[in-house]
Order: sequence, then C-alpha cells, then structure tokens
Amino acid sequence: MIPGEWLEARQEWYGLPGEFYRSEAVNARELDHVWRAGWLFAAPACELPRPGDFLTFSVGPDPVLLIRGDDETIRAFHNLCPHRGTLLCDADAGHVGQRLVCPYHQWTFTRGGELHSCRGMHADLDRAGLGLRPVATRTVAGLVFVCLAVRPPEFAPFEERFAPAVAPQGFDRARVAHAVDYRIAADWKLVWENNRECYHCDVGHPQYVKANFDTAEAEHDTPKARAELAAALDRSRAYWAEAGLTCDHSGVGLARFPDPADPNPFPVSATRTVQVAGYETESLDGKRVAPFMGQLRSPLAGVLRLRSLPNFWAHASCDHAVLTRLLPGTPGTTLARVTWLVDGAAREHTDYSLDRLLPFWKLTSEQDWKLCELAARGVASSGYRPGPLSRVREYNVDAFLRWYLNRIR
Amino acid sequence: MIPGEWLEARQEWYGLPGEFYRSEAVNARELDHVWRAGWLFAAPACELPRPGDFLTFSVGPDPVLLIRGDDETIRAFHNLCPHRGTLLCDADAGHVGQRLVCPYHQWTFTRGGELHSCRGMHADLDRAGLGLRPVATRTVAGLVFVCLAVRPPEFAPFEERFAPAVAPQGFDRARVAHAVDYRIAADWKLVWENNRECYHCDVGHPQYVKANFDTAEAEHDTPKARAELAAALDRSRAYWAEAGLTCDHSGVGLARFPDPADPNPFPVSATRTVQVAGYETESLDGKRVAPFMGQLRSPLAGVLRLRSLPNFWAHASCDHAVLTRLLPGTPGTTLARVTWLVDGAAREHTDYSLDRLLPFWKLTSEQDWKLCELAARGVASSGYRPGPLSRVREYNVDAFLRWYLNRIR
Amino acid sequence: MIPGEWLEARQEWYGLPGEFYRSEAVNARELDHVWRAGWLFAAPACELPRPGDFLTFSVGPDPVLLIRGDDETIRAFHNLCPHRGTLLCDADAGHVGQRLVCPYHQWTFTRGGELHSCRGMHADLDRAGLGLRPVATRTVAGLVFVCLAVRPPEFAPFEERFAPAVAPQGFDRARVAHAVDYRIAADWKLVWENNRECYHCDVGHPQYVKANFDTAEAEHDTPKARAELAAALDRSRAYWAEAGLTCDHSGVGLARFPDPADPNPFPVSATRTVQVAGYETESLDGKRVAPFMGQLRSPLAGVLRLRSLPNFWAHASCDHAVLTRLLPGTPGTTLARVTWLVDGAAREHTDYSLDRLLPFWKLTSEQDWKLCELAARGVASSGYRPGPLSRVREYNVDAFLRWYLNRIR
Repeated sequence: MIPGEWLEARQEWYGLPGEFYRSEAVNARELDHVWRAGWLFAAPACELPRPGDFLTFSVGPDPVLLIRGDDETIRAFHNLCPHRGTLLCDADAGHVGQRLVCPYHQWTFTRGGELHSCRGMHADLDRAGLGLRPVATRTVAGLVFVCLAVRPPEFAPFEERFAPAVAPQGFDRARVAHAVDYRIAADWKLVWENNRECYHCDVGHPQYVKANFDTAEAEHDTPKARAELAAALDRSRAYWAEAGLTCDHSGVGLARFPDPADPNPFPVSATRTVQVAGYETESLDGKRVAPFMGQLRSPLAGVLRLRSLPNFWAHASCDHAVLTRLLPGTPGTTLARVTWLVDGAAREHTDYSLDRLLPFWKLTSEQDWKLCELAARGVASSGYRPGPLSRVREYNVDAFLRWYLNRIR
Repeated sequence: MIPGEWLEARQEWYGLPGEFYRSEAVNARELDHVWRAGWLFAAPACELPRPGDFLTFSVGPDPVLLIRGDDETIRAFHNLCPHRGTLLCDADAGHVGQRLVCPYHQWTFTRGGELHSCRGMHADLDRAGLGLRPVATRTVAGLVFVCLAVRPPEFAPFEERFAPAVAPQGFDRARVAHAVDYRIAADWKLVWENNRECYHCDVGHPQYVKANFDTAEAEHDTPKARAELAAALDRSRAYWAEAGLTCDHSGVGLARFPDPADPNPFPVSATRTVQVAGYETESLDGKRVAPFMGQLRSPLAGVLRLRSLPNFWAHASCDHAVLTRLLPGTPGTTLARVTWLVDGAAREHTDYSLDRLLPFWKLTSEQDWKLCELAARGVASSGYRPGPLSRVREYNVDAFLRWYLNRIR
Repeated sequence: MIPGEWLEARQEWYGLPGEFYRSEAVNARELDHVWRAGWLFAAPACELPRPGDFLTFSVGPDPVLLIRGDDETIRAFHNLCPHRGTLLCDADAGHVGQRLVCPYHQWTFTRGGELHSCRGMHADLDRAGLGLRPVATRTVAGLVFVCLAVRPPEFAPFEERFAPAVAPQGFDRARVAHAVDYRIAADWKLVWENNRECYHCDVGHPQYVKANFDTAEAEHDTPKARAELAAALDRSRAYWAEAGLTCDHSGVGLARFPDPADPNPFPVSATRTVQVAGYETESLDGKRVAPFMGQLRSPLAGVLRLRSLPNFWAHASCDHAVLTRLLPGTPGTTLARVTWLVDGAAREHTDYSLDRLLPFWKLTSEQDWKLCELAARGVASSGYRPGPLSRVREYNVDAFLRWYLNRIR
C-alpha cells in the first residue's frame, strides 16, 4: 500500500515527492489504477490493413494482441492461450492465416478470438469462456485504443474530441511510413512532465522552436511574437473556414492539458494551431516532406495536436503525422513508440523520403528522452526535494501531477 | 508469507493461479520446502571417477560441492569455508590433490571434508565443527543424490525403485559422453508441467513422437496404435524375461507420475516401456548410436524412464542414457543440465560420435525450453487465468500441481 | 526494519550472520546510518586545481558534485537541480566556466552553488533556498571529505589525526598520476573485512608481503622477524626525528583499527611504520618510482597509513601515495576508486612512469576484490554460518564488526 502521508505530501505548484518515482508499491498501484484502467493508444488502424494482420505490445507485464478480424474489425486480446497461459504470438507484428494457433498444444482460435479447436481435451469439456480473453477496443478516426479494465471508462470523450478534429487528416486512409521503438530509462511520469511544458524547448529543441509558437511565454510573449502569431492566424483563417477546420488554440504557449476542470478521469484533447511563418509542416526546413494527407490541400491547415492520458500524443500537419505511444516497461523504464504516418497513396522514394520525413520528430523525441533520463537519475536521490514549478510555463505539469494523484489516491 | 487464500485458490483440473509464478514469497517458500527439503539429483557417479574429482552446482543461492573422497565415497558439502564463508571451489569441475585449500586464508580440508589445518588461528581454537558443512549424499545404481535438509526424508524409495530398474543399464560403469547446461527463462514448475504431458509432443517434438508411444491417447489411442504397441510388447517380452527386465508400463500415453496415491513426499518412479517398430534407441533414425551399455545386449530392452521430484528425469536405452537435472536459478529461471551417458568402455570417434548421439534429446530439450519460456511470459500477465487441463492428456500435470501445493502448504 | 534478533545474533569473535549481507532492509539502514551519516573521502584536493574544476560520484543512489569555487574553496552539492531534480553534471569530471547550467531548463548557478538565474519562472518566485543543496565538505591536508548528513559528526578527529601526519607528505601540492575505478561484486562490509586483516596476505598478496611487516603474527612473529623489524626501526629513527615524523606503529602485524575504545562514531587513524630492508617505497622491486613528495627527502620516511570509516584508506611512501575510496553501488556491490598521487612537480615519462608506479597497488587491490567476490558468493548461501575469527590475526575484523553493529543498531 502507498502510505497516506505520501499522497498528501505534494505541495501545489511543486514537483512530486521522490517516493513516487522509487517505490514498488507506487508502481504496482499505477499499473492497476492508471495503466489497466484508462484507454491506451495501441496503433493506427492502417497498420493492420487486412484481416489477420496483427501486432503485439505489452503494458508492463501484460502482453496484448491486436488483430483485424474477418469482419474487418480490429480487436485486442490478452496475448495468451486460455489453456495453459502460453504467449500466443511471439512476433512484434505479422499476419495470421485462417486461425491463430497456440504453439504449445495447438489450440486454434478464429481471427475474432473464438476457440475453434482444442484436440486432445476431454470430450465433455465445457468450451464456454475458452476463447481469447478480450481487451476492450475502440477505433476512432483511424486510431485504435484499448482498455485492460473489465469495465472501461466512457469512450465518448474520444469520439467527441478526436472524431471531428482528426477526420480531415485522413488517418483512416494513411500508411505507416516508419516507426521507432525506444526504451527510456525514466519513469513514465517524468516523460509526461517533460511533454507537458515547452520551458525546456528553447535550448532542448532548437529545431522545434524555430517552427512553433509553443515557447512564447515569459521571455517570448513579446509584442513582436504576438504580432507574428496574429499574422499567422490571419493567413490561415480563410482556409480553415473553407475546409471546415477549427482553430482551437490561438494563444502563445502550450494549450491547457490536462484541463483541471475536465471531469473525465482520463483526459483527451485535440487542438489545431498555426506554425511560424515559412513553416508548412513540422520539418527541419519547414517545407513539406510528403503529399497532402486526407482532405487537406493547403499548408495553411497548421498543426493538429492530440493528447490522451496516460499514453498518447500526436502532431498532424498537412502532409504527415507523428504519433507517440507510451507504455510502462520494467519499473523505472518507459517504452515509447514513435510512428510516422503519410497519406495512404504516397510512395516512398517517389513521394517522400525518410531522410526528410523523420529528423524533426526523431530529434525532438530523442532530445526529450535524454532529458527525462537525467531527471530520473536526479529524483532517485535521497537529496532530491520537489522544487517550485513555473506558474507561467509549467501550468500543465502542475495539472498533470494533480490528475495523477487523483488517479492513484 | 504466502496468503492462505492463494493456497486454496486452485481448482482441481485447472492450472495454477498466476501468483505462484510471480511472488517472491512463493519463491522463498519453494526454496525451503521443495529445494532444501527433497533429494536432488546431483550427477552420475561416473563423472567423478577418482578420489579428489569434484564438481560444483548451486541450488538457488546455495553453492554445493560434490567430491569423491579417499575412501571412494562421493560426498557433498556446502561449497564454502567454515572460517569466513568464502566460496571454496570456483571451478565447475576439477580435481583436488591431497587437500582442499580455501583461497582466502588457506585453511585446508581433507577430501572427506575434515579440517586439516588452519594456520594463523589462535592456539586454543576449538576445531570441533570446523570441517566443511556436510550435505546429505546417497548414491544408487550410479546416480548421486543430495539433500540440503538437516533431516532428509527417507532415501528408501530411491533404493526400491531405482536400484533394481537401473542396475542392468550399467550407469555405475558408464562415462559422460557430453553435457549441456541451459538457463531457462521460466519458473521450474513450468518446466515440470511441460515434462508431465506429451500433449505438446505431436507438433512440439516431431523426432520424439516418431520413436515413442507417448502421444497415443485421445487422437492416437486407435486400434492401429494399440496393435502396434501390442506387437512391440510381444517382440520384447522374451528378451525381458531372459534378461530379468520388467515391463512397468504397457499402456499408451505417459505412465502416471507423480502418483497421487504415493505417500512419499518426494515421489520417485522408474518404468520400462517399448519404442515404435524400427527404433532400437532414442536416436533420430532409430539406429543405435553407441555400443550396448551395462548388461544389455539387445535393442529389445526398450527404454527405461526415471523421474524423481523435484529435479530429475532420465531416459535410458540399450546403448545410451540421457539424464536431465533441474536446479532453481534466480527467481523465474531454471538451470537445466542434460548429460549423455555411454558405456564406460566406449570410445568417441571409434564407438560413437556426438553428431549421432546428441541430436534426439538436444532437440527435444531445446524445444521444451522454448515452450516453457513462452508459457512464462504468458502466466506473468495480470490477464492470465488458470485454464482447464485435459483429463486424457494432462493427468500428470494435475497430479504434479497437487503434489506441489501439498509441499508448500 | 531490521529484526532485533538479527542485531543480537552475532557472537563475539565470529563473523556476521548471513542476513546482514542479503537483506534489503539492512542495505537501506546502512545507507542511512553509515553512508549518509559519516564523513566520506571524496577526492584529493589536487584533483580540482582551478576554480570551476569539478568531479562527480554517487553514494548509492545519491549523486554528488564536488567543485572548486571562485574563492578556491572546494564544496560539495547534491548533483541535481533544485527546480525539477534533474542531474546537473553528467560527466565524471570536467571544468565549469562562469556558471553551472542545468541541461533541462537552464537554471544557472554560481560555482559556489548559488542560484544565479532562472528565466521562465514566475516573477514573484521566492528564490530563497533555490541554490544547490549543499553537502558538508571539509579539506584536511589535501584530502577532501564530504558528509551527506544535515548535522554531520565532528570533523575534529580528522584534523587531529590526519593534519599533522599527512602534512609532510605534501598531498596539497600533489598531482593525480592515475586512477582506476572498480565495481566489486561484494557488499562493502566484505571489502572492509578483507582490508582489516593481513591473514590473507601471505598467499593472496605475494608482492605486498615482501615489502611489509604486516604479516608477521602467529607464524611470522619470530625472533628473526622481530630483529629485522627492530633494525628497520633503528635505521629510520634518526631521519624521523630530524624530519619531525612520528612512528606510530612499531609492532608486527596490523595497527589496531578501528580501536574499540575510540568513542568517535566514525573512527579515523594515521600510523607511520617501516618497510622491510631494501624497500624504499611500495613498489615491486622496492626502488623508488617517483621523485620525493612534499617535505620528504629520504626513503627512511617509511609508510604512512591512513584509514577512516566507512570509506577510506591510503598508503603514502616517500615518493607516492595510493588512496582508496569505497562507495556503495547497487545492493551487493561496492565501487572502489584507487588513485595514485605523486609530487606536483613530477612529470610523467621524465620523472615517473605508470609502468613502475601502478603495479604494486593495482595487483594488491585486484587480488583483494577477487577474494571479496568469492566471500560474497559464499555468505549468500543458506548454508553459511558465521565462523570463528582468529584472535591473533583478525582482531581488527572483530573490531570492525562491533563498530558496524553499533552504527546500525
């Protein structure tokens, strides 16, 4: 159990007491109350185009199988056989023919998870409940989410916030251009604390701050910056109206997320904003790196940003999108998968090249992981004391920590 | 402590609740109530032919030294110096001259474990109790067993069941042709669950099922299979009578082990059975791979199978034998050593070659370890639920789990 | 918590019960009551010659930064930013220009640890207490010690015992010729138990016993050995008087340390003694390996030996000194750093070569670590029982264990 005094120990607008990064009891509680409770981003649906396509991942120690069924529906299951518990699919991804076959005793399952055969069992076996154990799965605008809870929370917030915002981006007709898996030697909370502020961007992400207005508080919320932002918003307004896009964030600095007033236990948000003049997309030189995606036909679309706690954020430009999925690894480590989407009709070498597509977010991601790992080494110390958060640049970190403590309390 | 409800949680004819594969408390209790309680197979006596020959192994964190003394008796000791606790013999195996010498302060011990000298200690030191701490050791029919308990259980069941069955195989005049050590990333119970059924053999061990009748229940217990088995038994009967061998298992499928009715806390069994027509031994092509062993002079001897819980099984044919020893490694891992014996007079290259001797059981072992490791990854999941066991093919798994729970209760 | 019965379980003149080497609770208590309580040797001051020079090390999970300030004072700090806890200096050693800059949000600090700037924080931030968290630091005779405790114990014993003894050796004008870092797979107590007796030296350190009188009890406390020692003392006496050096240890065998009568909770001692005839310094052939150090001008200076619990010992000859610093690594491992000092004016290749300087203590250290690792494997066994200590050769081991139990009780 987590001692009650730990839960009460955090001061508002300060970091989290060190015990939360070091305790096995905290880690176990997070698995149950966060990772096995909320909706987790699993994959873009386009990664499993045909019935029988599957991919696997693990939420801490829990292996999950995601597979497209014969009815085209994508479903998730605990990736283990209901007979003796054996891992069913050892591969990271692949294609299953007619049946999933357990490598141990060759029980077979349909691609919808139903038990098909179990030769060798006694004749009067009650087969009820011997299909694969389902994991709740929902797909919205081409993004697949799963929930390990037996009674998942409402999925409605995803439908409300993601469906209209993401539809124009065409994720449902996209293709995966590339994906990179990372093992970060830092607790997942540190990864979110990093993600929830751009206070570190000026020095930490030189390529990112050239392209975006995120950095613009405190030092940068100058008349000049405001004028540039206003001009950028003016340029986009006509196209947004024409294309039915909505501008959700027109301020400098990060949009508020999580919103402390959001009653949803696992907050979700989507906001569209503009980029700095000269940037048509999130690339190193600001030039487009792939054909237009989905319904978009102009660089004035800006950037759509998505986030859902506890494991997902994405940036979608007119020509590509970058999805980040977090998962807990062994205690103290976080597994991140960064996936680049382009339009489904785009062809590598002809229409886009990885050389130009990847660097912006590969750099940004790796710069962040490095900072998270330095933070992890510091907060492990008995000499660590929670420090003050900036009220102008770390409001989202404070909101994240408040959300977190409510979840595990 | 293991919560009482865990011990009560298993349903008959179902797998073990996941806690038993994941809990540190369970692991600690197993060390005490299984591994430090029962008789453990250590080595074939022929591996230490001369006084002073030794080998070492560890039971979890406990290093053990097995050494043949000047009186030809093989004895085991805790492999540490009674002075400061230092590991005495760091090598896996070797030969000790007149004295065992501790590398730290050069206390010396006879090859029977008695303190011989301890220069540097005070003159009035009481030397009583300063020999090596003994580990109970018994040799039966060329097989050495040890027990870490201060008061070991009866060894009589080994004498009763192994001595008459093994004597004709000539283990006491055998030689070690080869041995392979494996580190299996799976709890030892999963290794036994695997060993206690041949339900997985049809697909898992193609070379094994061609040679043996084990698979023959459910699907295979056909009139044809029964007729073949009857014919094989008929062929062997005359030789067995002549050679004084007993057929202990004349059914299809695995002999019952552990026998739920066996009152012995650590069950032991030996059964002789026949192979499929054309198989003179357990080799890939069925042809003999070494000269006859011991008193055997005919391939009609069949295969003698030995098992003792918690750490030993063996298959002995007319020309060679394969011994498997399990030991607990770090929690969640099992160390297996597979040893091939041939007749003591056989010469490599001339009388046998490893190319032909090893593949049958090397393949079978490695196929099993892989399946055990897949099972280990599945049962670690919070999504794992014990599944039903086949009453026709997994009766020994059920019996094993019953035995296990009785041991740690 | 450590069960009370463990603390009572040790018999006088016997080793420590195995629980003390295996228990996580013991390890946690040692961190608090030993490693975060006492003065720890950090580095020779000459390793940080200029303002801004720094080095880092970790005491278990606690990273520490040692840096020379603009006022020439060497100070230690918790090596983490008071803002978000990020590790400040990732390098093992280096030089900081005007300011220490946190890599995360670029808070800057003076080289004296004061907060200099924190751009991006809110305007009304209370900056009090936002400097680097200090770690108590004292320098004596060129040796820097730190203490993680908020209220460190008296430093006076170091001043009393080290200042006069070390002054002639010139550590404050020395230079680091070389340093080697080791990770020993053994608990730190085993490393001290090894260090506190030379019973293992005869066989364990052949090069060491040729040079020193340490070994000479029991077998070696012969009339011949006594005569040789007396002759060596006679040779040195005149020079010692002339140079103002004091002979603190004129017996055979190790000087008593820790002294059971010492009321200091973290004992400190310095003793000067002589070497075997023909040995001018601790080198393989006994010949000097570097120019005279400090005020010393004769090989008759003998060897000054320093120790302080829990982490320091050193041997200083007329021409060089070897400092050993221990730190706890992950549980069950000890980090050792061995540093060779020569006179500050000595030049490599011209005045000394590492080939001749290093072997004596590199061999001695590595021989010891190997023995400690063998001990660690033995005391981990459930078969380990504390054995008797030699009253003639392990009196300091007994005293060390008594000191240890008093510290964690």
